[in-house]
Amino acid sequence: MARNLQVAVVGATGAVGQQMIKTLEERNFPIETLTLLSSARSAGKKVTFKGEELTVQEATPDSFKGIDIALFSAGGSVSQELAPHAVKHGAIVVDNTSAFRMDENVPLVVPEVNEEDLKEHNGIIANPNCSTIQMLVALEPIREKYGLNKVIVSTYQAVSGAGAAAVDELHEQTKAILEGKEFTPSVLPVKSDKKHYQIAFNAVPQIDKFQDNGFTFEEMKMINETKKIMHMKDLSVAATCVRLPVATGHAESVYIEIDNSDVTVSDLKALLQDAPGVTLQDDPANQVYPMPADCVGKNDVFVGRIRQDLDEARGFHLWVVSDNLLKGAAWNSVQIAESLIKLNLVK
Amino acid sequence: MARNLQVAVVGATGAVGQQMIKTLEERNFPIETLTLLSSARSAGKKVTFKGEELTVQEATPDSFKGIDIALFSAGGSVSQELAPHAVKHGAIVVDNTSAFRMDENVPLVVPEVNEEDLKEHNGIIANPNCSTIQMLVALEPIREKYGLNKVIVSTYQAVSGAGAAAVDELHEQTKAILEGKEFTPSVLPVKSDKKHYQIAFNAVPQIDKFQDNGFTFEEMKMINETKKIMHMKDLSVAATCVRLPVATGHAESVYIEIDNSDVTVSDLKALLQDAPGVTLQDDPANQVYPMPADCVGKNDVFVGRIRQDLDEARGFHLWVVSDNLLKGAAWNSVQIAESLIKLNLVK
Repeated sequence: MARNLQVAVVGATGAVGQQMIKTLEERNFPIETLTLLSSARSAGKKVTFKGEELTVQEATPDSFKGIDIALFSAGGSVSQELAPHAVKHGAIVVDNTSAFRMDENVPLVVPEVNEEDLKEHNGIIANPNCSTIQMLVALEPIREKYGLNKVIVSTYQAVSGAGAAAVDELHEQTKAILEGKEFTPSVLPVKSDKKHYQIAFNAVPQIDKFQDNGFTFEEMKMINETKKIMHMKDLSVAATCVRLPVATGHAESVYIEIDNSDVTVSDLKALLQDAPGVTLQDDPANQVYPMPADCVGKNDVFVGRIRQDLDEARGFHLWVVSDNLLKGAAWNSVQIAESLIKLNLVK
Repeated sequence: MARNLQVAVVGATGAVGQQMIKTLEERNFPIETLTLLSSARSAGKKVTFKGEELTVQEATPDSFKGIDIALFSAGGSVSQELAPHAVKHGAIVVDNTSAFRMDENVPLVVPEVNEEDLKEHNGIIANPNCSTIQMLVALEPIREKYGLNKVIVSTYQAVSGAGAAAVDELHEQTKAILEGKEFTPSVLPVKSDKKHYQIAFNAVPQIDKFQDNGFTFEEMKMINETKKIMHMKDLSVAATCVRLPVATGHAESVYIEIDNSDVTVSDLKALLQDAPGVTLQDDPANQVYPMPADCVGKNDVFVGRIRQDLDEARGFHLWVVSDNLLKGAAWNSVQIAESLIKLNLVK
């Protein structure tokens, strides 16, 4: 496949959409024409791509004629409505929302983990949840070599996962607190939920709405998506997801139990040192470990603080950090598009 | 014991010392004379107690003549040096540093958990690490009723645990970032360690220095102190400790495995509803859960987000929040002093 492609970005003016456009440019993705789509409200805005000014157009069912690949990141309801039209027009949809992730006809793909699943696509490919992606990039090499039984994760998630308005709220609220001024939370933890809480100088144990079982949807996404992507229906996975006063960069404290009982920390470091998409930052003696503030703008998943559990020989603890807008969203979507080309799946 | 006591606070001008003085006043602790002690540098400062202005004096080996109870919170080296002198003069020392915590002749006490251990004291009683205390207040009623096998905790800790200078650094750095100005970290994560990192809008997976086994001392404190306080040498405990851009209020994501296999979330809620020192805040449908910003200035430990693990019937997840300067330090110390009186241990 040598021809350049017709590519569309839906949600082009959003936090993730902007990163998608930037990533397509940085990767020099083979684009013939880039079509930028958005809601009627944002249509008309100008966006620069490769030095050229492009005008954002309103996304409609007919926007996808002739499009080869459409990257969606405009919310689940937009994907529900427009992705089927894009597919009907012959486009392959890479959807960054949760709309189709658990649909058994839709591959849910982290290229470092299950790129081959792309071959089973029926027009739509789902991009997993940000916190799932970075965890699996770190765990897949371990699972492949040493087996994996159990995952218990506690997250430290940035507000940009809740969109640009959440970042604004964090900054404005922080400023108000420092100046001793009043403020009224209105976006976090979940814009559409009943109550809103202070995020500045706080930690909020709610991301997305609650399910009846006491877990949030974010936690259930991590649990269910991990099992689907790793093709391990019976893997034990538990998650507690917490929002922090950090703009960008998710961190995760991950406990795992592997099958093999004579693996050392050195074995895991050697494995992750060479793992695709991973940068190992693990040198406690020199205070080297990953942090959200250091990962911003980088595509990789950063892993450090690898320790063997003191009681369970098959147990290990890891600290996993990545830019939630890049590997957690825009970069993983563009990477899926690159894999589609590599695997010759774009007609 | 009806008489009023001679009480000393060592480290009276520090973040915890100030809270101790406030707590002694609020609790109307039976004080005849309150002696405030500090380093030579802070001596001479004035502190108000019950409407009276007291002058802080330099702590020396002779400061403890006639003192009944001395509350220490001036750093481990001060406790190492002066606590033995205080004991020689007949005082009972309640030490908030890590100096004597793992000494087998020193009881390490959380009154809700092991108040009876006070009876074994030899002059010094150690106040546990802040993050250990709040976790054990939440777990002890569960351990007592249903048994406890395993604890895996990831913490979300406030900077005030590293002292007043760390709180200043958080606020000044946050302001600098919002104003786009330069800044140079110099306090966090550990003042005496080689490198210092940004804490504002970040999450730093290092509290205290690293040990050779890859765990930090803070993590090892949680592990070892939990076993000592609960008298469970063989309990499996693992910790990952993380510093957040929060001034006051530690949070913890705690996973436990209990002995009993037919316990429900309702059972645990009912148990914790009536547990000493615990306030249950657990109503996901109404977005009720504990948060650091809500716990400041309160003595209790707040517990919420109680969920049964989806794979392990004996596994439960909890979210535990408390004011690290109060139950984590000043209030637990004063509470120990109250227990000493109650148990008739003050001669």
